[in-house]
Amino acid sequence: MATAAGRTVTREAIAGARAAIAGVAKRTPVLPSLTLSERAGAEVVLKAENLQRTGSFKIRGALNKPAALGDACARGVTAGSAGNHAWAVAQAARVRGVPCEVFMPDGAPIAKAEGCVGLGAVVRYVGDSVDDAVAAARERADEAGMAFVHPFDDPDIVAGQGTLGAELLEDVTDLAKVIVPLGGGGLASGSAMAIKSKRPDVEVVGVQVDTFAPYPESLRRGVPVKVAAALTIADGIAIKSPGELTLPLVREWLDGVVVVPEDDVAEAIVLLMEKAKLVVEGAGAVGVAALLGGQVAPAAHGTTVVVLSGGNIDAGLLATVARRHESEAGRRLVLVSRVPDRPGALAGLLSLVGEAGANLVDVAHVREGVDLHVRETVVQLVLETRSREHAADVLRAVRDAGYEARTLYGASA
Amino acid sequence: MATAAGRTVTREAIAGARAAIAGVAKRTPVLPSLTLSERAGAEVVLKAENLQRTGSFKIRGALNKPAALGDACARGVTAGSAGNHAWAVAQAARVRGVPCEVFMPDGAPIAKAEGCVGLGAVVRYVGDSVDDAVAAARERADEAGMAFVHPFDDPDIVAGQGTLGAELLEDVTDLAKVIVPLGGGGLASGSAMAIKSKRPDVEVVGVQVDTFAPYPESLRRGVPVKVAAALTIADGIAIKSPGELTLPLVREWLDGVVVVPEDDVAEAIVLLMEKAKLVVEGAGAVGVAALLGGQVAPAAHGTTVVVLSGGNIDAGLLATVARRHESEAGRRLVLVSRVPDRPGALAGLLSLVGEAGANLVDVAHVREGVDLHVRETVVQLVLETRSREHAADVLRAVRDAGYEARTLYGASA
Repeated sequence: MATAAGRTVTREAIAGARAAIAGVAKRTPVLPSLTLSERAGAEVVLKAENLQRTGSFKIRGALNKPAALGDACARGVTAGSAGNHAWAVAQAARVRGVPCEVFMPDGAPIAKAEGCVGLGAVVRYVGDSVDDAVAAARERADEAGMAFVHPFDDPDIVAGQGTLGAELLEDVTDLAKVIVPLGGGGLASGSAMAIKSKRPDVEVVGVQVDTFAPYPESLRRGVPVKVAAALTIADGIAIKSPGELTLPLVREWLDGVVVVPEDDVAEAIVLLMEKAKLVVEGAGAVGVAALLGGQVAPAAHGTTVVVLSGGNIDAGLLATVARRHESEAGRRLVLVSRVPDRPGALAGLLSLVGEAGANLVDVAHVREGVDLHVRETVVQLVLETRSREHAADVLRAVRDAGYEARTLYGASA
Repeated sequence: MATAAGRTVTREAIAGARAAIAGVAKRTPVLPSLTLSERAGAEVVLKAENLQRTGSFKIRGALNKPAALGDACARGVTAGSAGNHAWAVAQAARVRGVPCEVFMPDGAPIAKAEGCVGLGAVVRYVGDSVDDAVAAARERADEAGMAFVHPFDDPDIVAGQGTLGAELLEDVTDLAKVIVPLGGGGLASGSAMAIKSKRPDVEVVGVQVDTFAPYPESLRRGVPVKVAAALTIADGIAIKSPGELTLPLVREWLDGVVVVPEDDVAEAIVLLMEKAKLVVEGAGAVGVAALLGGQVAPAAHGTTVVVLSGGNIDAGLLATVARRHESEAGRRLVLVSRVPDRPGALAGLLSLVGEAGANLVDVAHVREGVDLHVRETVVQLVLETRSREHAADVLRAVRDAGYEARTLYGASA
């Protein structure tokens, strides 16, 4: 089996990785997207790596590393990550039949931790960043004679992730451009190398999220620059600094790196859910955000691939994102009104909004901290509406009937 | 192009339908599911028809019908449905370049209505059931000289839906069993016919939801029996009565019909979202519910296919389902406690739950309708926890510190 020699990654190493991961990693489908193609005005397809085993591309590198290590990982493996890499290493350890300990920052997504536990790995929470988790995993490996598996800055990992690019070469007819999430740089550089070493005409662009975007400055300076930790919905690419190995690879093989705003990532998650019917995590949705936001133009001729690198998002976060979207799309209207504090007064208002076609989700009385006559009360209604226009109609109907009505936030504020 | 002759459906008609839908309908992927295979203890794959154009299998029949009608639909088409069929007919009309009017019951999912509007169809809301919508569509067609397209009780529609079964024959090696949602019966009977006329050894089982399950009694009596309208999460199969055409076809071609409880459908939606990373609507998830609930056993040998028939679910409903699941999985704990009504009292309680690793989502004071000392207040905390065990730990920590604590609902009630 071919492995990467020293600190370089070769085409042969990627070919070897394909053999090493076969049978365990899935060859994920490339799905056409009518919605994205129409919005972008070009042929756009999705590499649905969110459907990968353990829910992200990380399984590719994680399977390749123990194969390269051989007996050197007989006493087990350790990994530190926000979750996807840890989960993938846990899966790889199980396949190989060796012990596994993974380290995650406090507050790592529950689904990812559960995935590791389900595969028999020991999960430890440590610190509040991926860097802390990586440091703890490295220390534990040294102490216990286990093999430490870095999430990206390792030639066997990069070669493993590169197998995704190799699949695109074979599965996408008329491949012209690839938009790929960029965190540590393993997936982006490995895939770019796999593609461009055979088809230098194909463009590969990496996408970072503005809350964690060390690459543009690092590329300018030529050395890894470190950014501060921040909260992000794209936890899977929340890496403070490029790797010593991956930075030069990204510089050599990628055609460009762009940055998208955090808010656009949330909208991309909802669009993928509503239109493409795919559950994609924040890190996996940055490519769609870049395409819709115009940071990356689709190829004028040929097919543009957006890589959806993972799908491990907690149901609770997905619910929050969906709810926020509902408000923004005018499907939630929070209406604040003043009604007389007597029997039947609220009933009148509720009948009115019901007749206007709005569905009542929640009602609350507000009697404190507002300037009120003693015989009045403020009510706050949360209503389900069909669209911004419908929300505006509901508001108009309430006002036309003589109620004072304000919106707290929502469609027609 | 072969069309169904009279009131029968033939294998030739299904072959003709494949030609009629090619190029517009997608050949949706068959995806392996490790989670379902492990839970079922057998090889289980998913026919991801939620990834179909317009979000459901309905496009197959909807494209076949105008092809069969030819010039008879030159003045346009009408359709009545809860949404998926309407959306599909709108798409088919657009492809053919004829006008389209669709009728939906009040309260039909917003995503489906939006889909129709986006394709240039006129959408009308009428009555509160699919039957009302179908009647209105038929009336409108008569009045305007348009062609009425029935959602299931039509041989061209059944032949069109049967193309899904034909794809399974080709795409699933070792096909042994197919679990398919059963509403009107078009998809189930058409697919069963396509499969079993070539491979009579393959078992095909239809799945209804308990809120709309006229098939078992109709099959017993041999005539379509009508059930009452009810609320259901599986609106796509909320059909009160089998068709005159489809009932005998279901009797002839299916090996059995089972019924799953409404609540299990919600859990199946969440499982598909969390584990398979697919957005599937209620009607599309009943097969998974039947497999997990044991109403249908997987094939002992060979591959069992679960058909995910559609993915058109509003983001708001998905959010509600996900939230409910979070509570049931112990990821939400609603804790009600009594604290002294003085500065700092709540802060003490919040520090305690924070140290126990619970994340505060919401806090509310309850001062009315509860039996309280004048210097006390009741607070209600909504907390995010990691698991049922973790929720129990948090509750214990609060009680050990001397606070009275009850759960309103949630993990450790």
